[in-house]
Amino acid sequence: MTDSRNATDANSRHDVVAIGNAIVDIIGRCDDAFLTRHDCAKGNMALVDAETINRLYGDMGPGIEASGGSAANTMVGAASFGSATGFIGKVAQDDFGRVFAHDLNAANVTFNTAPAGEGSAPTARSLVLVTPDGERTMNTFLGVSPELDHGEVDAAMIENAAILYLEGYLFDRPEAKAAFRNAARIAAGANTRVALTLSDGFCVDRHRAEFLALIRDGVNILFANEEEIIALYETGSFESAVDMIRQDTRLAALTRGAKGSLILAEGRAYEVPVEEVDRVVDTTGAGDLYAAGVLHAIAKGCDYPIMGRLGSIAAAEIISHIGARPQAKLTELAKSRGINI
Amino acid sequence: MTDSRNATDANSRHDVVAIGNAIVDIIGRCDDAFLTRHDCAKGNMALVDAETINRLYGDMGPGIEASGGSAANTMVGAASFGSATGFIGKVAQDDFGRVFAHDLNAANVTFNTAPAGEGSAPTARSLVLVTPDGERTMNTFLGVSPELDHGEVDAAMIENAAILYLEGYLFDRPEAKAAFRNAARIAAGANTRVALTLSDGFCVDRHRAEFLALIRDGVNILFANEEEIIALYETGSFESAVDMIRQDTRLAALTRGAKGSLILAEGRAYEVPVEEVDRVVDTTGAGDLYAAGVLHAIAKGCDYPIMGRLGSIAAAEIISHIGARPQAKLTELAKSRGINI
Repeated sequence: MTDSRNATDANSRHDVVAIGNAIVDIIGRCDDAFLTRHDCAKGNMALVDAETINRLYGDMGPGIEASGGSAANTMVGAASFGSATGFIGKVAQDDFGRVFAHDLNAANVTFNTAPAGEGSAPTARSLVLVTPDGERTMNTFLGVSPELDHGEVDAAMIENAAILYLEGYLFDRPEAKAAFRNAARIAAGANTRVALTLSDGFCVDRHRAEFLALIRDGVNILFANEEEIIALYETGSFESAVDMIRQDTRLAALTRGAKGSLILAEGRAYEVPVEEVDRVVDTTGAGDLYAAGVLHAIAKGCDYPIMGRLGSIAAAEIISHIGARPQAKLTELAKSRGINI
Repeated sequence: MTDSRNATDANSRHDVVAIGNAIVDIIGRCDDAFLTRHDCAKGNMALVDAETINRLYGDMGPGIEASGGSAANTMVGAASFGSATGFIGKVAQDDFGRVFAHDLNAANVTFNTAPAGEGSAPTARSLVLVTPDGERTMNTFLGVSPELDHGEVDAAMIENAAILYLEGYLFDRPEAKAAFRNAARIAAGANTRVALTLSDGFCVDRHRAEFLALIRDGVNILFANEEEIIALYETGSFESAVDMIRQDTRLAALTRGAKGSLILAEGRAYEVPVEEVDRVVDTTGAGDLYAAGVLHAIAKGCDYPIMGRLGSIAAAEIISHIGARPQAKLTELAKSRGINI
C-alpha cells in the first residue's frame, strides 16, 4: 500500500529533522523467566541476527505490531505537540516498510526516503517484550535499516531544519554511521543545531570514544538516561557523571526513570519531576517521547523548566499504554496542564 | 520469520476446527465524518479491491496491526478457554502472513496450511476503523485468502474434530466457497458437527438462498446477530426471524449487542444477559468471541445457559480493549465468575 497524503517538500522549513533506524515493533508480554531463558538483559536493546530473532519470535506469545524506531517515535511526538518534523530512514518494499511509512505520514511527519529496491533485506523489526512490571526489553533485527548511504541523507531537508536529531543506535553499522556523520557536517554548515540521543547503555559501551568526541565537538543538545551517562563516563555515580557532562555540553537533558529528569544549561541544573500516571503499562518509548517534548520546547523557544515539563507530559502519556507512539494529542495534554505552546 | 513451536498433528483430536479468511487487521481511530466521506456503512464489513484499500489507508490515521479474521479470532478465543482448536486458511509469504501464522501458533491453535507460493497475492488485510462510540467498520482486501483450494482442506483434521466451524465470509469467493462445501461434506461423513456463522448483514444479502439451503441441510449450530438473522429471512423484526429460524435449526446462538443474546435449542429459548464492561473501547471481534465461548461450552458438554454465559464473558473481554484477540486468559475469567470448565 502506498501513501500519497503527505506531500511536504524537503525544502519546507522543519523544526526538527531526525535520522534513525526505521523499525516496526512486535510487542508482546512475557515473564522474567522468558528473559532469563533467552539471555535478554532486562530493559536493554540487543542487536540480533535473523536466526536469533526467528528463534525468539517462535518462542514468544502473540504480538501486536506498531511502528517504532527511537528517533521516529520522537518525531511523531514532536509533531503531536505541533512541531513541523521530518524523518530520514530506510525501509524495504514489504508490509512492515509500508506500515512504517504510512504511520509517519499519517502523523504529519515528512518522510521521503525511498525504500530499498526489490530483493533487499527486510524492514527492521524489534521484538519488544513487556514484563508484568511494565519494563520493556528489546531484541532488534536491523535488516535493511542501516543501508542508508550518503546520497540518501537529504541535504536540503537538514539545511532547512532548526534542529537535526541523531540516534546513537545509528553507530552500530558503518553505513548508518557514515550517514550520521554526513548529516552532522551538513548541519554544521547550515546553522542547524545538532541533537544526539545516546540511545542505550550497551550502545554507549560499544561506541564510547566516538560518542565523547562527537559530544565535545559538534553536538549542541544531548539526551541520555542515567545508565547511559554513567556508561559514557565510566563513573560510579550519576552525580559524578553530571559533573563531567557539564564540562562537555551546553545543553543536556538527562532522564532518571521514576526519579524525574534534569536539564543542564548555562551552568545551571533544573530538576524536573515526573508526571504521575495511574499505572505503568509499557515503558517503551518513554525516553523517545521525553525528547519529543524537550525538542518541541526548544524549537518554540520555551524556557528550561517548560522543556522538562513537556518531556515529562509526553513520557507519562506513552508509558500509560502499549506502544511507543502517542494515542492522545500532546498539544492538548499540554494545554490541559496550562501550557499553551 | 518462521514459527516451528506448534507441531500439533492434524490427526490429533480437536474440539473445534475452523475454516476462514486469514486476515491481519490494521486498526485505527476515525470520526463519523471519515466514514461518510468514504461511503463506509458503519458497523459493517465491505470487501474492497487493492486500489480502494490503498486510498482508504492513505487517508487513515496511524494504525496498529494485529492478527484477525473472524473464525481465527474464534479459534484463539476457544483455545483461551482450554479447547483444542485448529484453523485452516491461506496466507502469503509476506510479513503479514508470518505474523498471522505466528499469532495462531503462539495461541496454541493448530495451523498447518501452507502459505501461497512466491509472487502470490498478498495476505489479506482489513482496515478496522473504530469510531469514538467503540463501533468498528471494516474494509477488507482479501488478497490471497480465498485461494484455498479443495486439496488444502485437511480431511484428517476435520474428521478428527468434534465441531467444524465455518465462516459465512468464505462464500464471497468461488474457490473459498468450494473449500467450504468440501469441508462440510467431509464433516458429514465423519460425525463432525457443522457450525456456521453468518458473518455480516451484507454478506447474508449476497448469499441468502445458499445460506438458507445450507442451514436447512447440513448445519447443526448456527451463529448470527440480529441484523444478520433479519437479513436472512427478510423480515421486519427479530421476533419473526426467531420464529423462522426455530423451524430451520436445532441449535442457534443469536447475539443482539447490548441487549444480550438468545440460545434456541430443543424448542426452548434461553435469554442471556450481557456481561457488564466499564467502557466499550472497540467492538471488533465481539461476535467472534461470543462464538468462542459457546463452542467451548458445546465441546465440553455444558448446558445451554452456560453456553451463553461463556459467550458473554468472552465478548465482554474483547470489547474492553483494542483488537479482536483476547488479552486475558478466558478460562481464568470464567473461573473468577464461578464457572469451572
